[in-house]
Amino acid sequence: MQDIINNIVEKVVRGEIQLHEIDNFLEANAAMVARRLAIEKLTNSNLPSIGSTILDYAEIKNRNAENVIGAVQVPVGVVGPLRVNGDYARGEFYVPLATTEGALIASVNRGAKAVTLSGGTSVKIIFDGMARAPVFKLDSIIDVVDFLDWVKKHYEDLKRIAESTTSHGKLISLEPYVLGNNVWLRFIYDTGDAMGMNMATIATEKVCEYIEENFGRARCLAVSGNMCSDKKQSIVNSLHGRGKTVVAEALIPNDIVTKVLKSDKNLIHEVNLRKNWAGGARAGTFFQYNAHFANIIAAIFLATGQDMAQVVESSSGYTWTEVRENGIYISVTLTSLEVGTVGGGTRLPTQREALSIMGIYGSGNPPGSNAKKFAEIVASTVLAGELNLLSALANKELGKAHLKLGRAAKV
Amino acid sequence: MQDIINNIVEKVVRGEIQLHEIDNFLEANAAMVARRLAIEKLTNSNLPSIGSTILDYAEIKNRNAENVIGAVQVPVGVVGPLRVNGDYARGEFYVPLATTEGALIASVNRGAKAVTLSGGTSVKIIFDGMARAPVFKLDSIIDVVDFLDWVKKHYEDLKRIAESTTSHGKLISLEPYVLGNNVWLRFIYDTGDAMGMNMATIATEKVCEYIEENFGRARCLAVSGNMCSDKKQSIVNSLHGRGKTVVAEALIPNDIVTKVLKSDKNLIHEVNLRKNWAGGARAGTFFQYNAHFANIIAAIFLATGQDMAQVVESSSGYTWTEVRENGIYISVTLTSLEVGTVGGGTRLPTQREALSIMGIYGSGNPPGSNAKKFAEIVASTVLAGELNLLSALANKELGKAHLKLGRAAKV
Amino acid sequence: MQDIINNIVEKVVRGEIQLHEIDNFLEANAAMVARRLAIEKLTNSNLPSIGSTILDYAEIKNRNAENVIGAVQVPVGVVGPLRVNGDYARGEFYVPLATTEGALIASVNRGAKAVTLSGGTSVKIIFDGMARAPVFKLDSIIDVVDFLDWVKKHYEDLKRIAESTTSHGKLISLEPYVLGNNVWLRFIYDTGDAMGMNMATIATEKVCEYIEENFGRARCLAVSGNMCSDKKQSIVNSLHGRGKTVVAEALIPNDIVTKVLKSDKNLIHEVNLRKNWAGGARAGTFFQYNAHFANIIAAIFLATGQDMAQVVESSSGYTWTEVRENGIYISVTLTSLEVGTVGGGTRLPTQREALSIMGIYGSGNPPGSNAKKFAEIVASTVLAGELNLLSALANKELGKAHLKLGRAAKV
Amino acid sequence: MQDIINNIVEKVVRGEIQLHEIDNFLEANAAMVARRLAIEKLTNSNLPSIGSTILDYAEIKNRNAENVIGAVQVPVGVVGPLRVNGDYARGEFYVPLATTEGALIASVNRGAKAVTLSGGTSVKIIFDGMARAPVFKLDSIIDVVDFLDWVKKHYEDLKRIAESTTSHGKLISLEPYVLGNNVWLRFIYDTGDAMGMNMATIATEKVCEYIEENFGRARCLAVSGNMCSDKKQSIVNSLHGRGKTVVAEALIPNDIVTKVLKSDKNLIHEVNLRKNWAGGARAGTFFQYNAHFANIIAAIFLATGQDMAQVVESSSGYTWTEVRENGIYISVTLTSLEVGTVGGGTRLPTQREALSIMGIYGSGNPPGSNAKKFAEIVASTVLAGELNLLSALANKELGKAHLKLGRAAKV
Repeated sequence: MQDIINNIVEKVVRGEIQLHEIDNFLEANAAMVARRLAIEKLTNSNLPSIGSTILDYAEIKNRNAENVIGAVQVPVGVVGPLRVNGDYARGEFYVPLATTEGALIASVNRGAKAVTLSGGTSVKIIFDGMARAPVFKLDSIIDVVDFLDWVKKHYEDLKRIAESTTSHGKLISLEPYVLGNNVWLRFIYDTGDAMGMNMATIATEKVCEYIEENFGRARCLAVSGNMCSDKKQSIVNSLHGRGKTVVAEALIPNDIVTKVLKSDKNLIHEVNLRKNWAGGARAGTFFQYNAHFANIIAAIFLATGQDMAQVVESSSGYTWTEVRENGIYISVTLTSLEVGTVGGGTRLPTQREALSIMGIYGSGNPPGSNAKKFAEIVASTVLAGELNLLSALANKELGKAHLKLGRAAKV
Repeated sequence: MQDIINNIVEKVVRGEIQLHEIDNFLEANAAMVARRLAIEKLTNSNLPSIGSTILDYAEIKNRNAENVIGAVQVPVGVVGPLRVNGDYARGEFYVPLATTEGALIASVNRGAKAVTLSGGTSVKIIFDGMARAPVFKLDSIIDVVDFLDWVKKHYEDLKRIAESTTSHGKLISLEPYVLGNNVWLRFIYDTGDAMGMNMATIATEKVCEYIEENFGRARCLAVSGNMCSDKKQSIVNSLHGRGKTVVAEALIPNDIVTKVLKSDKNLIHEVNLRKNWAGGARAGTFFQYNAHFANIIAAIFLATGQDMAQVVESSSGYTWTEVRENGIYISVTLTSLEVGTVGGGTRLPTQREALSIMGIYGSGNPPGSNAKKFAEIVASTVLAGELNLLSALANKELGKAHLKLGRAAKV
Repeated sequence: MQDIINNIVEKVVRGEIQLHEIDNFLEANAAMVARRLAIEKLTNSNLPSIGSTILDYAEIKNRNAENVIGAVQVPVGVVGPLRVNGDYARGEFYVPLATTEGALIASVNRGAKAVTLSGGTSVKIIFDGMARAPVFKLDSIIDVVDFLDWVKKHYEDLKRIAESTTSHGKLISLEPYVLGNNVWLRFIYDTGDAMGMNMATIATEKVCEYIEENFGRARCLAVSGNMCSDKKQSIVNSLHGRGKTVVAEALIPNDIVTKVLKSDKNLIHEVNLRKNWAGGARAGTFFQYNAHFANIIAAIFLATGQDMAQVVESSSGYTWTEVRENGIYISVTLTSLEVGTVGGGTRLPTQREALSIMGIYGSGNPPGSNAKKFAEIVASTVLAGELNLLSALANKELGKAHLKLGRAAKV
Repeated sequence: MQDIINNIVEKVVRGEIQLHEIDNFLEANAAMVARRLAIEKLTNSNLPSIGSTILDYAEIKNRNAENVIGAVQVPVGVVGPLRVNGDYARGEFYVPLATTEGALIASVNRGAKAVTLSGGTSVKIIFDGMARAPVFKLDSIIDVVDFLDWVKKHYEDLKRIAESTTSHGKLISLEPYVLGNNVWLRFIYDTGDAMGMNMATIATEKVCEYIEENFGRARCLAVSGNMCSDKKQSIVNSLHGRGKTVVAEALIPNDIVTKVLKSDKNLIHEVNLRKNWAGGARAGTFFQYNAHFANIIAAIFLATGQDMAQVVESSSGYTWTEVRENGIYISVTLTSLEVGTVGGGTRLPTQREALSIMGIYGSGNPPGSNAKKFAEIVASTVLAGELNLLSALANKELGKAHLKLGRAAKV
């Protein structure tokens, strides 16, 4: 076997076989090894750690990745217990975070402690739907108006076509947008426990074919016309949501602010106003009036097999604080949180286990309830992260924390 | 040993020891095991895959993560050879991508093939600097104007103080911004081969202390006042850059458009205009007039130990195309690409190997040259990804590609 | 009479009567004179021209202005004939522009000539509605969700209350937006031929009172919560429209590009792409991917008594061009054009006449048709202005035109 | 004479003479009359009020307007006395506002009273410079980098060329921006007492010619490449200013809040936060976190002959409030206020008088001081307007005020 592999490796190095063609000559895991060896030779590198993985390429190939040579390993820590009072997530949770940024997990953990001691978060999902928006090119605004009418009249047809491609997805609504002779139809789907991007793409492609056949004057130029907006922060995502729009809130009593966060409620509020709001407006962080949603989102997404490019829009949102008599009120509004508990990377061994820590791997009962539970936990963890960072900034702990716990040791 | 671990686990489960306190009772890797076992019991889950890791918690603790229970594993594939004609990266490269999104690697790989056959990319770095921007609160606009004067006069002092905290970092410039009685000082540092966020934070904290001591009327409310803007897309990042501003370009001859991309140059251009530009403007993807920078950025960042929350602003940028007589011209402008080859997650075993595939692990000679080489490779890979996706959309391959290669199998 | 006036003037100068109190002592036009004389004395100025007006203060007082001392006079020129092929405006029109910017009218006039010789514009209104959005403060996200439910259930009640305040306005829809425990209800009204801002405000105030009385947990903090968004460019205005969303287009044949515009279609298109689109994206003119909508909007608004502060959002929109075999296609999309033919400044003598030039003064038959006709003419004139400026830039005529015709003489 | 006019009118009506050609046959004011009569016949309208003007077309022609038929008259009211404590404006001022929006002047006047009784505003100009930014097209990013170097090296030459076109303007700085193979050079000029747009255009056109001649690979596609950004709100204007960046502030003592504004400081602050900041962020009024800057800007601009299309970016800015022990602190930051006291419409009879009310008509001594004084007065008046509207909203006076004073009578 080793000979066969070596033989293939040599051919790759000599350029007779391309990297992706190795799969044609060897079974999956042998191909993965051969490709790694070939890369080692081609680039004069040594890749034993990447090669040392529990991943079974046969499972991954044609589903999650191509040209695979092994795996990257990122440390997973947990924060918790975090008390969440949602409609789906109710109780105390441990949340897995994968990160290489020192101090992050410890920081969120302190926030979680303060939140849990305060009775936990309240959390509500106020929108749920995955969007895909093809762009159509028409000849003139006259045709555009005809097209808008036609679409309105044929909504039920389009819905039927879209749903014919999937057993789970449902078309919820369709919003048209116009710019000159361009039309975007923003299709919104209920995709159950899946994040749903591919489901939405396939359904929408089918609809586009139908439209081109039945309304001859509209040419679908791209099934994704960027009004979706996938892997981008955008006004349409921020205003109307993509994935789930979730609000989590908590009231942290005065004594917990003092004892757990070692901080002052007026100061936390002032940091929020001057940093997140005035600073956000002055810098133009238009979709992120927050301190570091992205840190928590990225770490949970990585641990649980979410689409890492969707960290971009999933990090959009607002942190709002109010000084109250009995403590500080804090809420986080995540406008476009895209999460799933089935499909994509969720089925990989470590990711699946990470979801199981929160009791949300796979399809929920009823469908969609696992993804919703997940969204409530994510928003609550984001709140914990915001609360603690605002406190730490108010306390001027930031650089010191990094010096003690983080990469700062390597400055 | 197993008894000691079990004993600790029981205490954690009974709530007598908190998760993070396990580190006080056991050596690092035993603590990691104990914590995992405790989480399994607390959450009634089974986490053998997460526990099955090559990571040495003793190396990670206090540097990259806390409360660690093991690792997440994400498949790493390679694209290439990709020819890059930069000032630092010159030649053909293989680029590691870690992702769980089926079809992504294959897609970028086809783009890379087209680019390489076309002679490769040209690429230039037009800005390089890491920003940190504390927010100061003053009493009045009168004090603000005095403060701006004072800062200008004491620039050399501030520079000296900042640089006293680091052996590598240099303060390059300082830009003030005003909103009422709030002032942000946006410090820009040369941070060599490090991404530099922590270096910048620690240096800036020191400067803030100096300012508060020497200009009594300015109170530093937060060392990060969001004009940095870290882990956020923002106008200031987009306009002036954060990390590196890089432009890569290529001219793809007509025959390669036809044979490799199976597409048409006019159609690719039209998709770019109507999707990325008209669609971007209509949706308000204000910092991302591109198709999917985020996909490539996220995959490279994950493979190489970059800060995953910085995928947010690192995905900002523009794709520009022109139909020319002899082919299609395409450029990508990445406004705020934040990468490093030392520090952070780059030192972990698999990440370090991933960097070594491109010959850029660790400090460059001269310092900074490895990070610059890396940035040129990233931008070139992003170009390959854009080129291929625009072609695929023009060819209406998208959903079909996912159906064949991707998660779509799980719809 | 002059003595009485002089007496009042003296008292004002001595500070015994305040400026606005003059109205209590004199009939309207005498008060206007007295106030002007008082200001002349107080500021040592001479204001005969301001005093030389046909305005009747008795008509204006309590309707259009207070503390009036006279009028400002701005030159009005006309462009045309401009052929418009709309649903309401059909035929050739002369359009009055009031401006002090030399060369502007001549420039738009050349564009109008090109458009008319090309057969005129096609133009469509794709949205029509005036928005007002109060902000409500609630205690928690739990209350927010209850409130959203309550509002949905009581929509008909709210509609009835709103419409009880006006004989013309109709509530068309109501969109809720959430940020933490804040809720905005964006009410959209059909306001007929009126621009409708005041109608919408009064109706909405009444609804807010009703809400506070009937849903005790919602406190209306401001009847305008900036999601309207009045006198501001905003994403919500850009995405959903405010006032009217109008698209006008024209195809300018090759020979007219050459003979009338003295230009080249490829160059016009390229200027549009690199200036309006690339330049707009790079500069961040997020709601204005156009060359100078604002010039034409401001000039028509001023001539016709529109609200000049609404030039801000009414100037939002996109210019889209395509090079076609037989000429250049150009469209303008005005996302939030706020115009009226009754109410506000439209009833003043000169403004009313300006509207009459276009045959649109006062209420249309059916109601709303005059305002719609007006919107179609405005969009068509904007198109003429864009077309000509893009040509002039392509031809490098700009500064020269100003040198010849404009203020440049005064540099 | 009347016969000659009638004769021309007939020829225009028959289409033998075009509207703008009338100037070739008659002296200026007769031509104005003839054109008005022709329009009356062509459109079957009656335009005596427009014709009844003090404007001398001979003065205006080739400077301020073309195709003139008369003038529009807009009522001018005054607010004041308003105490301003600036570097240029020191003392009490009366400020002319031209508007047709009932209640506006009265509203600003109450704010002015509160401000003046509080000791007036403090106001500072923190940036002053007019921008023009041509866009250059290059072949490749290699050429772009060469061009940036060339520009840097030839800055003094470019400055000399630019300044050769004007006796007053000075080139202050030049900022390059890159997107792919496009380069914008943002030239910033000191333009003295002129708003300076034309001065900047003419100087920049000359520089562009020089560049094209001396750096052959750069083609100037448009002298205005939208990074200026003229008559548009933009991030570059907001971040770096265009015209003048001005901050005005005031501390309104508790008793004046109560007695003059009939309001409550906590409520005013809360309205500012939830309307201007939360509402602004949620709506995406990205450059206008304020209540109604545009109202005051538009009214002053109209009264004083400013460029009405520049109301757009001149209305950008932030309102910031703080509840303090002894009252409420309020500041307004106008990021890009474009005003002049010479050139443009300032020389027209009524506009010139309006400027003279504030003692700022014409060139200041030293040059530029009149425009700066004007900017300080404008910012202070804007503050008065914001203060009063926030109070009125807090007091729920808005619709009622319009009902009593405004257009509401016409609902």
